[in-house]
Parts: sequence; structure tokens; C-alpha cells
Amino acid sequence: MSVSANNLDACVVGVDFGTLSGRALVVRVRDGAELGTAVHEYGHGVMDATLAATGEPLPPDWALQDPGDYCDVLRHAVPEAVASAGIDPAQVIGIGTDFTACTVLPALADGTPLCQVPELAGRPHAYPKLWKHHAAQPQADRINALAHERGERWIARYGGKISSEWEFAKALQLLEEDPETYQRASRWIEAADWIIWQLAGAETRNACTAGYKGIWQDGRYPSREFLAALDPRFAGFAADKLGHDIRPLGARAGALTAQAAGWTGLPGGIAVAVGNVDAHVTPPAAAAIEPGQMVAIMGTSTCHVMNGDTLAEVPGMCGVVDGGIVAGRWGFEAGQSGVGDIFAWFAEHAVPPDYTGEAARRGVSVHELLSAEAAAQPAGAHGLIALDWLNGNRSVLVDHHLSGAIVGLTLATRAPDIYRALVESTAFGTRVIMDSFRSSGVPVTELVAAGGLLKNEFVMQVYADVTRLPLSLIISEQGPALGSAIHAAVAAGAYPDVPAAAAAMGGRHEAVYRPDPASAGTYDRMYAEYLLLHDYFGRGANEVMHRLRALRDEVLRRKEDGSGEPPGGAVPAATAGLGRPERMARGGVWGGRPPEASTYGGRS
Amino acid sequence: MSVSANNLDACVVGVDFGTLSGRALVVRVRDGAELGTAVHEYGHGVMDATLAATGEPLPPDWALQDPGDYCDVLRHAVPEAVASAGIDPAQVIGIGTDFTACTVLPALADGTPLCQVPELAGRPHAYPKLWKHHAAQPQADRINALAHERGERWIARYGGKISSEWEFAKALQLLEEDPETYQRASRWIEAADWIIWQLAGAETRNACTAGYKGIWQDGRYPSREFLAALDPRFAGFAADKLGHDIRPLGARAGALTAQAAGWTGLPGGIAVAVGNVDAHVTPPAAAAIEPGQMVAIMGTSTCHVMNGDTLAEVPGMCGVVDGGIVAGRWGFEAGQSGVGDIFAWFAEHAVPPDYTGEAARRGVSVHELLSAEAAAQPAGAHGLIALDWLNGNRSVLVDHHLSGAIVGLTLATRAPDIYRALVESTAFGTRVIMDSFRSSGVPVTELVAAGGLLKNEFVMQVYADVTRLPLSLIISEQGPALGSAIHAAVAAGAYPDVPAAAAAMGGRHEAVYRPDPASAGTYDRMYAEYLLLHDYFGRGANEVMHRLRALRDEVLRRKEDGSGEPPGGAVPAATAGLGRPERMARGGVWGGRPPEASTYGGRS
Repeated sequence: MSVSANNLDACVVGVDFGTLSGRALVVRVRDGAELGTAVHEYGHGVMDATLAATGEPLPPDWALQDPGDYCDVLRHAVPEAVASAGIDPAQVIGIGTDFTACTVLPALADGTPLCQVPELAGRPHAYPKLWKHHAAQPQADRINALAHERGERWIARYGGKISSEWEFAKALQLLEEDPETYQRASRWIEAADWIIWQLAGAETRNACTAGYKGIWQDGRYPSREFLAALDPRFAGFAADKLGHDIRPLGARAGALTAQAAGWTGLPGGIAVAVGNVDAHVTPPAAAAIEPGQMVAIMGTSTCHVMNGDTLAEVPGMCGVVDGGIVAGRWGFEAGQSGVGDIFAWFAEHAVPPDYTGEAARRGVSVHELLSAEAAAQPAGAHGLIALDWLNGNRSVLVDHHLSGAIVGLTLATRAPDIYRALVESTAFGTRVIMDSFRSSGVPVTELVAAGGLLKNEFVMQVYADVTRLPLSLIISEQGPALGSAIHAAVAAGAYPDVPAAAAAMGGRHEAVYRPDPASAGTYDRMYAEYLLLHDYFGRGANEVMHRLRALRDEVLRRKEDGSGEPPGGAVPAATAGLGRPERMARGGVWGGRPPEASTYGGRS
Repeated sequence: MSVSANNLDACVVGVDFGTLSGRALVVRVRDGAELGTAVHEYGHGVMDATLAATGEPLPPDWALQDPGDYCDVLRHAVPEAVASAGIDPAQVIGIGTDFTACTVLPALADGTPLCQVPELAGRPHAYPKLWKHHAAQPQADRINALAHERGERWIARYGGKISSEWEFAKALQLLEEDPETYQRASRWIEAADWIIWQLAGAETRNACTAGYKGIWQDGRYPSREFLAALDPRFAGFAADKLGHDIRPLGARAGALTAQAAGWTGLPGGIAVAVGNVDAHVTPPAAAAIEPGQMVAIMGTSTCHVMNGDTLAEVPGMCGVVDGGIVAGRWGFEAGQSGVGDIFAWFAEHAVPPDYTGEAARRGVSVHELLSAEAAAQPAGAHGLIALDWLNGNRSVLVDHHLSGAIVGLTLATRAPDIYRALVESTAFGTRVIMDSFRSSGVPVTELVAAGGLLKNEFVMQVYADVTRLPLSLIISEQGPALGSAIHAAVAAGAYPDVPAAAAAMGGRHEAVYRPDPASAGTYDRMYAEYLLLHDYFGRGANEVMHRLRALRDEVLRRKEDGSGEPPGGAVPAATAGLGRPERMARGGVWGGRPPEASTYGGRS
């Protein structure tokens, strides 16, 4: 408090490390005013096809990054943001960051990434594994099976399933596939913590990633016995390579080193906050950290984060962590693996030329046109129910082999009908999550939207109507960077704690959308239908989605092996030309946020 | 036989009366060569919005025609066809016709349509009700309920349900809504029989429409007691207004009158065959009238017709009629209410510009492009299962309030994937019908395709693979008109019976498509999934489709009443402009047939 009281012009810098770039934001400490910002794209982007250092192809489902790119953000985006703010760098009293997670790397004892050790630079396993590196599924499966077999208490804190994206699965993959590099790694560290090490010159670990991604529960990691049962060589992993000094969010990690001061142009010695995660740093930016305030960061996917006063184990949540969002409270996280991604898929791959042409003619996006047309319908008029699982289901079914469905199609169904049904399906998915929280004794009383989708008024109204909750909107367009700045202000001592800083610097527009009673009544009936289908397809009554996926994989494998079906009887070979669209989904861009900013829930 | 033996140049004329036009075809008797053809469009088309005579608006679901248009086909198309054939009219020895059904009209005792009685010309109920007049559903519902209540034996011959399209439902509507016109009607007659009356000068009734549309079973109509229980005034309907001299198909109705000779330019006194129906007249044209040969007339919808040696009551079929297709055999009929219609819906309303643009660039139709792309996939590669009920389900569920569904969607799903899944879903629907026949003791051994869809090689191969049957193709592109010509030749005595005439004049390419074993194996697995979903959504386990439709109707009614939901909270009114596409489906056009020719299964 003293710092800001003494200095009306004090500023902090928040840096948001996304999937493809990093953004720096200069924020005034006393009121959260956003004075300047800058973005720096990673030079290596995401390495998912080849390793840049060698040109070596990477296996499927791999996703690596180059840690030098993170430092480049400090070198470029931070000074540019300060310059664009028009302030004197001396006004800056602290810096905070947030990162994608779990993005994790092996390092030497001094923090040097193994990929920067010359003899290891050609080894893929020496590089940071990005959150969406999905090649550790076999390891995750074994971790989950063993945890249930041994009755590990922590598994219930993660809805019953550890993700292949997280620290232990990725580390076990490293050990099994490249034991030499595993041995060389003194540290296995989240990029969220590694970047702080670069700024403050000393290793720290933050409560958020330790809890959500590192299985740190009740003051400890999974036991040596558990790890040894996975692989005897893995027994010492947690004890030896992870950090055990877990610091609360908003804590001071240290002082900005001379080297980092040189990179950033900021004064040496200013406060550096401990690391954080993009989704989890957002509630303070929205000043929505009270129990019952569910913050939904809605982009290509949605991440739901909320504080609670007491521990509850909610079936199907991603995790519950003591101090995982704000120190002193239990932080709950849930997610939907496809939201804006689904709308983007539809707009790109299923909307006929009469609509796309009309959108072009009016100078609006296809989303804007479809939203307007869909909004003109009363709820229930399209006669459709969709299941929003085109990218799998994260919460509450935790099953990425589920797929999407649409029921109720007729020859009179048109694109805005399906678009509306897809939007509604994601809202029903959010309501399922809320209901799961409530039935586990965790009330949800307000929905606070952040992320790119909040600009779509139609989508927001549907969410208010479906959830029957007042829907508030975060004010900042740079929620994560503002959240990081808030933590910087606390680390600098300008506020006694994150809640105080959030109250002064963050903010939301309250209850911008309120449920319309008639629509909400119709949606109650449609939600009942959604639930019936949700449970039928998602809880084992008919595992058709799993079987169809398995059949697809089998057929495609057979085709690749050259042992596939002959093209079949009299069917002519396809006329050559239009290449088959890649089977990998492209990340959709939504609203005004940069692409990576909207990948949120999918990665944390 | 004598006629053709004596005259190598003898010809017959077949006339196919469709929904929007009539086609005449001149055919050589000895070998079925098609020598000339002509089409005449109905001047009044389909009256479904207003009555032409008065401009009076018609209620929803009405569809009327003007019988003068039918005579115009005789006046124009027949002489033009003869001219285009380059033959001497004197070579023509007979004329036969087929019609949409149940298209039915009230007439005076001399055959004058009531709408041609001046004081009745302004009454909608005085006009022919076209097959797709769907305003008699309440009457059909009451007929069905009463039939089951009284345990009428005939109801099982119709899969347990009489259609609102048929003679009794439409007549009961006439009685209840316009009793005066009902009283004036001495005759209630299928247009199929009325046109023969115009040609031969005397009333006849044919076994096909009497059986399939007139509930003529075991030599009688529904009883006086049954009809009286529907409405006391209806007791004498069958006895008084229907015909009781039911003639077999291929029989001679009479000799061409002088008046009709004047219209057509054909010689007076030549043979006129009794009436027939477009779908049912097609098997002889394909020379596919043996038991086990299922003829599928595949257009916007599909009609399945097949002969059997013995009576069997197949659950969900449209009807089984003694001599309904060929005299002396039991004729079975089943149908799928949406087939080409569904593909057309998809191509028009769900295919994005990259495909429609590519099709335009290559100068092919969207269907051709999607078919080629879909054909290039191995079966099962798209991971999808669809339910083909976008226009309801005729056989075997007999439920027009069902709707379509797609399961297995992912962000990698592309238009050719869904297109293929829709094509497959209709093939699965055909297999369900075949399985229903088989499990009722009626074998199906060959699938014979007729109708516009047979030109699509991809679709045909899928049907062969899914049904595991050799798939043959009718040779003629004018199946119904050729079938009518075959019946004319029999009526003229050129052949002893329809089978003999069909063997000489009709024909099919046998087993053009054979099941590919690998694809068929994959389809067996996918069919199992289809059946699971078919029964789940179609047999009462989850009546979500009915509830969604009811909700839709309720919501739209509320909106029309002005008592609807307010537009809702902060949602802006839709930007004006792009009108909502009509909720009525447009009939899709497929392949080279004229539009009405492909509405087949939907009407008979």
C-alpha cells in the first residue's frame, strides 16, 4: 500500500505468454489503467512437425517450443509496451507473468534449459513440451490406472483423471524415451516458473501450476512408492527434480536481476512476482474472486475457474487446488475442450455460399451474420439439440474420445439453426459443469465471461438464459496480462494481497446480461433433452462414439499400411484435384484477441 | 401375341402423369424400343397456395390439381411423342397410363369432375386432391385408431397405419368440411382411373390403387359398420362412391373413344389398359417382377416394390396387395420418405464455398464433386453415423415426426464426410426394410435401382456394399412411361400377360454393382450402430425428436400469436436483410429426370 500511496504514477508490467506470442501490458498501480501494450511473436512458434535445430521430423502429437523465444518477449514486448505507454521506466515497480500450462522443460541445476546445452540441442526431449504436446497419453493412462488401483487420495482432486498434458505424464515419457536426457535434467520445471527464474535469478515454484499440473496436494507430491511402481527409475522424480518451496500466488519471487533489467529496460531490483497461469490469473483481473463467481474464459475452448471456501471433490472437474487461484481459498477448475473452435468449424466448413456471400456483401463476419439470424429466432424454434463434443469432453465426462452430435434435423433446417444449436450446446455444457459443482456443495451464483467470445452478444445472452444466472463481463481486453500486473503490484507491496489489488485494479461490468424468463423456461426443457443425450452417449449406455472413432482409426491405419480396402467395384477413382482438407483441426480465431489468446481452456 | 407377330412395326403409347407434368412415350411392341417422347407441363401445376378459379387462399397442407390439365397431356404430349417417333399413328395398337397416387377426385355419375360443374368450380373440395395433400391427418388418425380398436384385419396389411394421403382419409375430410360437395359426388375416383375413363369412355378401377390406396383387401372395402363408426354419414361411402369391379393390371379397360382419338391423334378403338401407379408400373419396365427382386425407385424419396408368392404382413411396410404390381402375385410396397431430398438439402444448405466454388470451377455439380471426394474414402473413415429421417420415416417406423441426426462429428469433419454419411444412412434405411421383409418370411435377393439416383455411381456402390446384394439398373430412362406402354401392349393382346411383355419390352443391366467384401464388412459394423440409434430414437426409448418438434411448433405458434418470448435481454434485433429461408423444404432435383419424376416414393 505504501508504494502506491507514495507514488500516484507507479506502474507495473504484466506479461502474458501465449502459445504463439507474448504480450506485455503496462498498468497503473493505483487504478489499473492500461497505459500501453505490445506483442512479440515467438520466432520458433510451435514446433510440431520438425525440430528447428536439426530439421528432424517430430512424431505425431508432439508440440515443442524454444525457450529463447520466451526471453525475446522480455527483450522486445516489454520495452515496446513501456514506450507505447509513454511512461518513464523508473515508474515501474514490479513485473508479473502468466504462462500457458502445463508447458514444462528439463533444465540444469542453474536453470539452463537442456536444449541450450550444445550436445543436447539436437534432442527433441531436451526442449519445452508445450501444453498441447499430446504424445504422453500412454504414460497418463498408466498413471491413472495405478492411482485408482492404489487408491491414491489425490486422484479425486482431479476429477479422477490426470491429463497427458501434465508434468508427470510428460516427465515419464521423457524418462522412457530418452533416459539420458532425463538423467541430465536436474530440474523439471514449468515454463511459468522458468521465466521467473530468468527474471529473478533464482528458482521458485508457484502454487497454481504445482497444484493443477504437478499433483501437489496437501503439501506433497505423489509418493516415492507410487512413482517407483510406475518405473523404478522414476522413484526419485518428484523429490529430485521438482521444487518443494511452493509459493503462494502474489508472492515476491525475488528482485529483477541486472541481466533481466538489461533485457526489459526496467529498473533492476524491482519486484518479480511468482509465476502464474493465464486462466487462473484472470479472475483477479475481473475482480471476480469470491466464492460463487465462476469466471469462464471463453475462446476456442472454455476454462472455468472459481474460488471456494472449502474443499470439495467435484466429479469431472479438472482440479481443485489450495490457493490455486487466490491464496487462502480453494481454487476450482473445469473446462470445455471445444467452444469457439466449434463455432469456427461450423462457419468455415458447413455454411453455404448464400450466407457467406451475404456476410461479405454486408461487410460482416459469417459469425456476425449467423449470430444475428440465430438471435432473431425464439428459443426452441429450430427443433435441434446438439452435443458439444466435437473436440471431446473435458468436464464433466473427461473423455476426449467422445464426439459431437446433432439431433432434430429436417429438410427445413438452415445454417443459423445449427449455429444456434451449437452455441446452445456449449451453454448446456457449462450448465452441466455448474450443476456438478452445485451437487458437490459448491454454489455458483454469478457467471463472469472473459475471453474473445464475450464480444458476441447473442452468445452471451444464450449463456445467461441457459444458466439462469446474471452474466458479467470482464472490463479489460487483456485479462491475463492485467491479472499478471495485479500480482506484480502485490509482489511489489503496493497492496496487501491479491483481493485488495484486484478490487482496485481489476473490474467487471456486472450483470450485463440477465436471463430472459421465457427463453430460460424453454431452455430448461431443452437442457433436460441435452442431459438425456449427454448421459446416453457419454456415460456408457451407447459407446457408439468410441466405436466409430476406433473404426475410423482402424480403417485409416489399414489404408496407410496399404492393406486397405480396394476402392470398390464400379466406383471411379475420385477426380483428382481438391486436396482432402487436413484432418487436423485448425485453431479458429474469434473476436479481437490474437489467435493464441483464445486457446485458453484448451491448455490450462 | 398375334398382333405383334403380324405387325413388326406395332407400337404402344405409355403416358406417365407426374406431379407437375405428363410424359408420353412411344414404344415398339416387339422389343420395347423407345422411339419418341414428349412432355407437357400442367397449366395449373400444383395449387397449394390459392385456388386458381377464385384466387381464394388454401389452408396449409392443401394440394389440389385441375383435371383439365391431365386431358391437355393427352392433347399435346401424345401427338408430339408420336410425331417425334416418326411413326404413322396407325401403327399404335394400345395406350396405357400411370399416375401419381393417391391423387383422387369427386365426380358425377358420368365422370364429370365436380370442379367442372359450374356452381361447384369455386369450391376447393370439388378439385382433385393431389397425393401430397396432407390436410386429412386428423381423419387418418381417427381411421387408424378405430381400426386398431375394432381389430380390423386389413390394418396389418398396411404396416399398421393408413396414410392421410389415401382415399378414405381424404374422402372423410371432404365429407366433414364440405358435406354438400360430398353429397354431389357420385364417384370418388383415383385420377389413375379417371384418366382411363376419359380415354375409354367407361369407368374402371385398377387393382393397384384399389389395394394400396383404397383399402381393398380380400375382395372388399372396409365394412359399412366401420365407416358408420367414423361418421354415420360415411356409412355408405365405399358401397356408393367407389368402384367394385376391380380389374387386374394389364387388363383392357376398353377401346379408345372417338373423342380421345381426336385428342391424341391415335386410332379410335385401340386398346386402353386399366390405370396404374408410377412406382408400381416400374418393375415390369425393369423386367424385375420375380419374387426377391426388390425394385427401388430412388429419387427425392425412395419407393420399394417387390412381388412375393405368398401373403406376408411385414411390420412397417406401406402395403401388401394381391395383384398390386403383377396379377397373380402379392405386391409389397415400402418406402423411405427422404433420400435424394436429403442429399439435395445438404448440397444446398450445408456445403461451404470452397467446395461449391471448386465444383463451379471444374464444371461439375456439387453432388458430383462431393460424391467423388466421398468415394475416395474407405468405408468407416469419417467416423460418422447419420439417421436418414430428415423428412420423417415411412418404413419401417411409419413415423413422420421423427427427424435426422448425425453422430460422430469432430473438428476434422468435412463436407464429403457428412455427405457420405448421409448417403450411407439412406442405404442403411433400405437394409432395415429388407431385413424387415426377410424376418417376415419374404426373401430379398436382388436390388434393382430405378429413378434419378441410379446415375450416381458412388451412391449405387454404397447401396451394393451396405445391402450385400448385387445391384442392377433399369435400362430405360423413362421407367414409368415404359411400364405403362408394356401394360398397353398386354391390353392390346400383343402379349399374353405382363411378365411376357416385360421380358420382351423391359430390361435391366444385371448386377452392375457388386458388394466389395471389405467395405461390406465395415458396413456390417456401421449398420449395427445405425440399428442401435434407429431403435433408440425410433422405438420409444428416447422420444426426444417428437418432443423437439412439439416444442418447435409450440414456440412458433406462440410467436405467431404475438404472445411469444420477448427478443430477450441485451440481444439486438437481427440486422435486417437476409430473409429467413422458408421453413418448407424445396423439392430437390436430382440427375436427369424432370423434377416431378423424382418425387416418387413420397407420393405412392
